[in-house]
Amino acid sequence: MNFTEIANTRQSCRAYDSGREVEQEKLNAILESARLAPSACNGQPYHFTVCKNETAKAVAKACMGMGMNKFASDAPVLIVVSEMPYNKTASIGAKLKGNDYRSIDIGITTAYLTAEATAQGLSTCILGWLDDKELRRICNLEHPVRLVITLGYAKEDDKLRTKKRKDISELVDVLE
Amino acid sequence: MNFTEIANTRQSCRAYDSGREVEQEKLNAILESARLAPSACNGQPYHFTVCKNETAKAVAKACMGMGMNKFASDAPVLIVVSEMPYNKTASIGAKLKGNDYRSIDIGITTAYLTAEATAQGLSTCILGWLDDKELRRICNLEHPVRLVITLGYAKEDDKLRTKKRKDISELVDVLE
Repeated sequence: MNFTEIANTRQSCRAYDSGREVEQEKLNAILESARLAPSACNGQPYHFTVCKNETAKAVAKACMGMGMNKFASDAPVLIVVSEMPYNKTASIGAKLKGNDYRSIDIGITTAYLTAEATAQGLSTCILGWLDDKELRRICNLEHPVRLVITLGYAKEDDKLRTKKRKDISELVDVLE
Repeated sequence: MNFTEIANTRQSCRAYDSGREVEQEKLNAILESARLAPSACNGQPYHFTVCKNETAKAVAKACMGMGMNKFASDAPVLIVVSEMPYNKTASIGAKLKGNDYRSIDIGITTAYLTAEATAQGLSTCILGWLDDKELRRICNLEHPVRLVITLGYAKEDDKLRTKKRKDISELVDVLE
């Protein structure tokens, strides 16, 4: 699968086959690609907690509320993405430029993780609606949780939807 | 090129072949993949200004200072990534959860853009060291500039370097 196919194929999956586990080999490949992602000053200001079985169920519950993310409890794997402190160089740059590189870095590694999952035939959904305090308690984490990623095989009837995106003319300007 | 190869091959390129232009077809493919990136509540809170020729030179200059990013003026294309306002749904979620989804979204689309560039045989560097005010003036932008991406062909002697990353044991914990 080339990257254009990945970008076209990846979609937020909200219907998982709860009976089908994620192969360890595939999970390793997914985490390895996430590990190789670039980050500001190579700070890698993130940490992944891979949750399965009972922990996955508890994490899913901490991403629900107000009718959100009910499907998460069907995903066999949930990956909790925490934000780690800056390294010194990135911290100085961020202060001088008033830029939050850590959130951008978390976005980049999340894109790598979910792109590799797509390439491996798996499905994901990136959840931002979460109970940080409860997730930290469940996973025994010191630092803030920014995202949770559901990972698993989609149900067979979960078809590819047409993506709704801004037109390229709205998204892009060209200056010469 | 599969995604594992993309993740391994992509590296911050700081030595561009200034005489070699980026083909329009490849640029289109790169922007199209960036366009397809996921974002919180599909808000797509970003805009790309593709800069060439004299504008590219001016943008490169606005990313220099304190010895940083001198190489940027050799890249034939510079893409200025601005942050656009939230859509309403993402804005409500962000307020309720105290999470900055826009920066994460910008990271995701930047990862898509640079991954597709790698797949197309091009090289990139993501610059966070930039003069927001000056870039807004040059590109006539209302909203904040978060990143600038240099894009072009690497010089022939720009070899693949070994990536220094956290060990997987430091990056990942597993809970069952």
